[in-house]
Amino acid sequence: MKQEQKLKVVVIGGGSSYTPELVEGLLKRHHELPISDLWLVDIEAGLEKAQVIANLTERMINKANCQIKVHLTTDRKLALKDADFVCSQFRAGRMKARLRDERIALKYRMIGQETNGLGGFSNACRTIPIALEIAKEMETLCPNAWLLNFTNPSGMVTEALVKHSTIKTVGLCNVPVNMERGAAKMLGAKREDMTMQIAGLNHLVWARKVLHEGQDKLGELIEELIAGNDQMMPKNIPPFEWDGELIRSLNIVPCAYLRYYYQSRDILDKEFAASESKTNRADLVAEVEKQLLEIYQDPMLDTKPQLLKERGGAYYSEAACELMSSIYNKRSIMHVNTRNNGAIQGLPNDCAVEVSSVITSSAILPLNVEPFDSDTLRLIQQMKEFETLTVKAAMTGDIALAKRALILHPIVDSGSHIDEALLETIRENLDFMPAFAHRLAQSEQ
Amino acid sequence: MKQEQKLKVVVIGGGSSYTPELVEGLLKRHHELPISDLWLVDIEAGLEKAQVIANLTERMINKANCQIKVHLTTDRKLALKDADFVCSQFRAGRMKARLRDERIALKYRMIGQETNGLGGFSNACRTIPIALEIAKEMETLCPNAWLLNFTNPSGMVTEALVKHSTIKTVGLCNVPVNMERGAAKMLGAKREDMTMQIAGLNHLVWARKVLHEGQDKLGELIEELIAGNDQMMPKNIPPFEWDGELIRSLNIVPCAYLRYYYQSRDILDKEFAASESKTNRADLVAEVEKQLLEIYQDPMLDTKPQLLKERGGAYYSEAACELMSSIYNKRSIMHVNTRNNGAIQGLPNDCAVEVSSVITSSAILPLNVEPFDSDTLRLIQQMKEFETLTVKAAMTGDIALAKRALILHPIVDSGSHIDEALLETIRENLDFMPAFAHRLAQSEQ
Amino acid sequence: MKQEQKLKVVVIGGGSSYTPELVEGLLKRHHELPISDLWLVDIEAGLEKAQVIANLTERMINKANCQIKVHLTTDRKLALKDADFVCSQFRAGRMKARLRDERIALKYRMIGQETNGLGGFSNACRTIPIALEIAKEMETLCPNAWLLNFTNPSGMVTEALVKHSTIKTVGLCNVPVNMERGAAKMLGAKREDMTMQIAGLNHLVWARKVLHEGQDKLGELIEELIAGNDQMMPKNIPPFEWDGELIRSLNIVPCAYLRYYYQSRDILDKEFAASESKTNRADLVAEVEKQLLEIYQDPMLDTKPQLLKERGGAYYSEAACELMSSIYNKRSIMHVNTRNNGAIQGLPNDCAVEVSSVITSSAILPLNVEPFDSDTLRLIQQMKEFETLTVKAAMTGDIALAKRALILHPIVDSGSHIDEALLETIRENLDFMPAFAHRLAQSEQ
Amino acid sequence: MKQEQKLKVVVIGGGSSYTPELVEGLLKRHHELPISDLWLVDIEAGLEKAQVIANLTERMINKANCQIKVHLTTDRKLALKDADFVCSQFRAGRMKARLRDERIALKYRMIGQETNGLGGFSNACRTIPIALEIAKEMETLCPNAWLLNFTNPSGMVTEALVKHSTIKTVGLCNVPVNMERGAAKMLGAKREDMTMQIAGLNHLVWARKVLHEGQDKLGELIEELIAGNDQMMPKNIPPFEWDGELIRSLNIVPCAYLRYYYQSRDILDKEFAASESKTNRADLVAEVEKQLLEIYQDPMLDTKPQLLKERGGAYYSEAACELMSSIYNKRSIMHVNTRNNGAIQGLPNDCAVEVSSVITSSAILPLNVEPFDSDTLRLIQQMKEFETLTVKAAMTGDIALAKRALILHPIVDSGSHIDEALLETIRENLDFMPAFAHRLAQSEQ
Repeated sequence: MKQEQKLKVVVIGGGSSYTPELVEGLLKRHHELPISDLWLVDIEAGLEKAQVIANLTERMINKANCQIKVHLTTDRKLALKDADFVCSQFRAGRMKARLRDERIALKYRMIGQETNGLGGFSNACRTIPIALEIAKEMETLCPNAWLLNFTNPSGMVTEALVKHSTIKTVGLCNVPVNMERGAAKMLGAKREDMTMQIAGLNHLVWARKVLHEGQDKLGELIEELIAGNDQMMPKNIPPFEWDGELIRSLNIVPCAYLRYYYQSRDILDKEFAASESKTNRADLVAEVEKQLLEIYQDPMLDTKPQLLKERGGAYYSEAACELMSSIYNKRSIMHVNTRNNGAIQGLPNDCAVEVSSVITSSAILPLNVEPFDSDTLRLIQQMKEFETLTVKAAMTGDIALAKRALILHPIVDSGSHIDEALLETIRENLDFMPAFAHRLAQSEQ
Repeated sequence: MKQEQKLKVVVIGGGSSYTPELVEGLLKRHHELPISDLWLVDIEAGLEKAQVIANLTERMINKANCQIKVHLTTDRKLALKDADFVCSQFRAGRMKARLRDERIALKYRMIGQETNGLGGFSNACRTIPIALEIAKEMETLCPNAWLLNFTNPSGMVTEALVKHSTIKTVGLCNVPVNMERGAAKMLGAKREDMTMQIAGLNHLVWARKVLHEGQDKLGELIEELIAGNDQMMPKNIPPFEWDGELIRSLNIVPCAYLRYYYQSRDILDKEFAASESKTNRADLVAEVEKQLLEIYQDPMLDTKPQLLKERGGAYYSEAACELMSSIYNKRSIMHVNTRNNGAIQGLPNDCAVEVSSVITSSAILPLNVEPFDSDTLRLIQQMKEFETLTVKAAMTGDIALAKRALILHPIVDSGSHIDEALLETIRENLDFMPAFAHRLAQSEQ
Repeated sequence: MKQEQKLKVVVIGGGSSYTPELVEGLLKRHHELPISDLWLVDIEAGLEKAQVIANLTERMINKANCQIKVHLTTDRKLALKDADFVCSQFRAGRMKARLRDERIALKYRMIGQETNGLGGFSNACRTIPIALEIAKEMETLCPNAWLLNFTNPSGMVTEALVKHSTIKTVGLCNVPVNMERGAAKMLGAKREDMTMQIAGLNHLVWARKVLHEGQDKLGELIEELIAGNDQMMPKNIPPFEWDGELIRSLNIVPCAYLRYYYQSRDILDKEFAASESKTNRADLVAEVEKQLLEIYQDPMLDTKPQLLKERGGAYYSEAACELMSSIYNKRSIMHVNTRNNGAIQGLPNDCAVEVSSVITSSAILPLNVEPFDSDTLRLIQQMKEFETLTVKAAMTGDIALAKRALILHPIVDSGSHIDEALLETIRENLDFMPAFAHRLAQSEQ
Repeated sequence: MKQEQKLKVVVIGGGSSYTPELVEGLLKRHHELPISDLWLVDIEAGLEKAQVIANLTERMINKANCQIKVHLTTDRKLALKDADFVCSQFRAGRMKARLRDERIALKYRMIGQETNGLGGFSNACRTIPIALEIAKEMETLCPNAWLLNFTNPSGMVTEALVKHSTIKTVGLCNVPVNMERGAAKMLGAKREDMTMQIAGLNHLVWARKVLHEGQDKLGELIEELIAGNDQMMPKNIPPFEWDGELIRSLNIVPCAYLRYYYQSRDILDKEFAASESKTNRADLVAEVEKQLLEIYQDPMLDTKPQLLKERGGAYYSEAACELMSSIYNKRSIMHVNTRNNGAIQGLPNDCAVEVSSVITSSAILPLNVEPFDSDTLRLIQQMKEFETLTVKAAMTGDIALAKRALILHPIVDSGSHIDEALLETIRENLDFMPAFAHRLAQSEQ
């Protein structure tokens, strides 16, 4: 990209309550990232909410004294035409679908988290067909644009995109950013003096190296973590203690989601209990969303409100803006979801992995990952297989493949309840799972 | 081995109620397998029971008009000296330990089966140190002898032996024999006209090829299985229905134990329910054992009684005798546990696998296994990692490694209950787990 | 295949001087292999010679008092219809092409052997298109028949067939049979008491295990070989001494062709010298061929003449007949070219390898091969890559791929002489290399 | 490393004629690399020459107005004590040994280049024992120092060091720097705007990505190269034309040394011809060396003379100084020899590879390398196997291993001449090859 260029940025799912954070990040980098047009795309049903967001966005831009034109549209193709960056943050089926996923999962005593287990599966099946449709449109309308995906389940969506589209795609997540910032605090280091290498899959990621002042401080960080000084946890995850003996033996710094695998029964029991007392994650998020929208409507508001921080996605937009800036005008190391190509030994070349990478304007260059201990590798391989089968199931509607995916998942029990839960999931999502709907109709003839 | 040789066969755990079956098999093959001496080795505590077995053995030999001398001893080294074949069928901690394993596992709502989950782990930790001690003695006293292991957990015990001893070791199990016999019946084929190739790990094995009359009848067998005509199940496993859609999609014929992985919640629920009504496996076996011993004492009895068939180990001794005969005087294909060396792609070369192999008097030559579908491979890899970590833990007493093994097991939840269950297991088995006892003592100082 | 069936055997290239050996082998096994019809297929230009062979064949059958009908035809499709076994032993371009290959290779100081280097490349490019055409016809006319290929270069032809056809194909060579017979003599063992495992690629094969009387006698065999007592060499290869120090360090028994890789300069120098004195292989063979044909015409001759033994292909037909018999009515271990599927670690699953295998009527089951030492593996991988690129080049006519194949070959120098030699080869074989001819025409427009 | 620290730099082989270039580089970076002491270490026999170099070094430092103390010593341990950076650029056996290598190689019509074939083998066997001795001393005297190796054969020396020492070692070469600089010129790009990723082994390296202004310009660079506009060649290599068709098909930018593999006969013929007319590389270098030393003695000279550029090692010291600076105070991407760990798929984890890496003060983080085409990979694997066997042979003196190394080398013929050439090499280098000398003495007893 040339310096003189005026950039066109498109946000799919622009009516999300996250958008103001993204806008804040873009404004902060306006001198290095010369955006001329910001397109917010949303669906008809979300237009009212999206208008609130668009208005706030304009107020924020005015306050920052920038010359960015804001466009709100439901015409995705119009928006994509000649785009430079496309940020994908839509939610297929909106918050209602997420609530439904959690409900069905809990009914069958399964995990319903939006990126994991039955919830993640369901979310992937709704989201991947749309993501591929967007990429297909981009191949015609803006073939050189970058697609920044932070739509969840980000790992599986990115895998579908890198496998089935030619568009340059990068999957983003705020988990590694939180780890890096937290680690710097825990070690009393300046973030820019530290080089942290993370590796794994989305929401299944570990810090592998924490380089600082001529040393690898991984061991030191592990001891801080075990001692209870964990500052790497995102806001939306309740604090808990790691099993020190286990973490020390693994010699690895896990991301917060790893507790689902290292302490599954404890966590699931807590989650099931919470669900009974109506304090589960989807409900909480829905409540915050409602409050946020009210605040956004205040015509005097021209900055990102405090409450958004508690929404859980801190540093999402930070990561997105930083990535755009790195692609546009500097070489930096970031933690992204991209094609493996051997960066992590023992996984297929064509799958998506979450790894620290050198970002350039032409390509993402993952750092090589030193071989994992074999038990950690087995966990990664198993989850990747779950993801790969899920992507295939999402695209084909093959119910047997869906079962094969789910029974392989480390924290999903196999058994006849899977059949029932799957059928219920598909029936409740018929509009969003065209391949499954088609197969179901066939089998019921 | 030379034809004129008179063979010395040693049975470790000779006082087992299985022994009469083994004796029957040896007598049946007496013309091709010229045994001169049969040594039954047992521990002091089991001597009374072993004497009953030895007496019955002598009556059976007399009836068959054979010239085999029977020796009963607690002096293992005396027995091993210059042995040709050593059959290992001992049970470390005897039936009591097995009952204890099941009890502890159930207490923490975990699977307590003697080869799987916490039960398998515990059994391995008790058994492996003794198995390695025997192999060490053999390296001095009979370095060219073959060690036939059917002590459970047979896969992990064989892995420990092939990794840490130079003795030619073969692990045996009756599951593949049952599959082969059952498949022949299901297909209406003569067993000798059929070539079945099985592959996997002990108790995690699949038929991969069922060759008969110029065709691979795997698909036909799968349909029979799904249709409910399953004749491959050992007596000790209650019948149940496979998920036809799943099995057809996997395109593989699973052994009976696979239901723990393909229908885990259904099976575990049934098992937990059974345990509450005192009808669990270990109790049943203990009851049958008691009855058997009474029958064996009958001085008129000179054949294997009918009840033994219901003991669950049918074809164990068949496999053992067939293996000795193949090694001694013919080349045949059998299903055994042996060093992988690449027979199954994606597993370490030095681990033990259960594969159809050409048996010769000099070496076991596994048939190559066509690559598994990647989800099946992931399951195998995960279980193998559990086994490998368990072997290491058994030898070192490293509790963190033990945890890493257990949390990787596909049907064991991770969580704090693991710690408690592990500690309870070790405390109740201090005499049989010297490495753990030592570590525990250290950590409690 | 059913016992009552009357078998139809088709020989492509039936007019070869080898045919009487094949006929002898079939007659020897007539009781276990009930052939009713033997079809000899040849091209118009070879019909006169083929008629001589057909006549001799009938006299041999009459003498043996068998009821096999002999058919001679140039109509391949007629012959293939409902065949049970198809033996492929044609020579594309006949002996003239082989002579031409040797001449061109020598001109550029390269190896011109018919399975190796430029000669092997050229032969493959002539042969593969025809082999694939035959297989394509078989897919329609006799889809369940077995294709036994001993057309050279047997490894590459088999690779093309297993990759690009659904016909059950087995590639055969007399090298392993010679090794096995020779080894038995060298060890003073009966062949049926010995189990030899060989592995590698066609003409690049090693004995890996020589099992006999409870021991692996590989080391003993190596010492015999080094001591000069080499009885594994086929007749057509002049004797020479192995580098004892090297072979002992490699701890492997090489086939005779390995001298091209272990002593390349010595052998090539000798070959180049021979070529100057007109004593090269192709000339010798042409001379013997001429003599054989004269002998065959003798109307009194009704057995295979002695001279055929010196033709060099001893045990080719032995292997072919034995294979048909094993497929038809017994399970045996033979050394064949078949799909790798992981039998040799470090090679692609879909390539062809030469390995000891259990032969059944439904499938070829290769024995797993213990990992090779890494330098030997590198040699195998390099040759396999040469073969794979050659197959691709033969099918596409891509000259750059042809170069990539040749410069990778361990005993072919890279350099501008390759271009010239390649062009000369293609120009002289235009009729037999349609893909190259097409590309050449395009590039010269 | 802390900013306030005063750095101690040690140069092993400090008397080399290259040293002034290194000194120039250090002085240029004096503000970012605060060196207090520069130790030049050489052997007794080289002391006179080294004194000339030390004197010139002091004059250069004075001219630059820097406060660096220069120490000249033969006491290596004294120099290593508490060093921060150790630059290894010694030549075992000095120029005489290199001349001898070339002479012996040519005598047996083999390549005698100092990093390749018999010459590289011989050089490795002389150098590795000394390099390991230095590393051993460093483990005691300066365990946290970095060892920068540019002693040839740099790849094999680095492999020996990363395998057998705990010292942080980086191998350097000027080839990738030359490629990067040349490519920038060829593309009309500023070097700092371009990200070039190289990968392979030392002197067997390719550019894999040439990222510039949002595109990968690899294809463009290939076309420039083919068109004859090759500016990536070091001065010491005579120009020549690439085979355009081949390079385009390989789709890869080769380093200059690749001509040994892509055009071996042409190059070797030219080399052998040159050797007969006494214009071979080693002779030329010896002549330039002599002239340089005379110039260096001029007491008025206080800068690096022009002639040094023609010495052939341009950018060696550039690379070394840049690396020290990156380690000391910034994160940058450089092309270095380091432990593979999976960066290049298909090579052992523990071998050394030459790859673009992020340099930090704590660790070298290689960029992951996209899988090579399989024929290129085979070439790399084969050369790596040669290197690995050579390292083993150098350490053990195992002559059979030495042969196994050499006969695997793609441009070394196997045959009896290898034996003779090896023996002659060892006999002429007895003082420098202690392990071989020992074995030879044993075998001759």
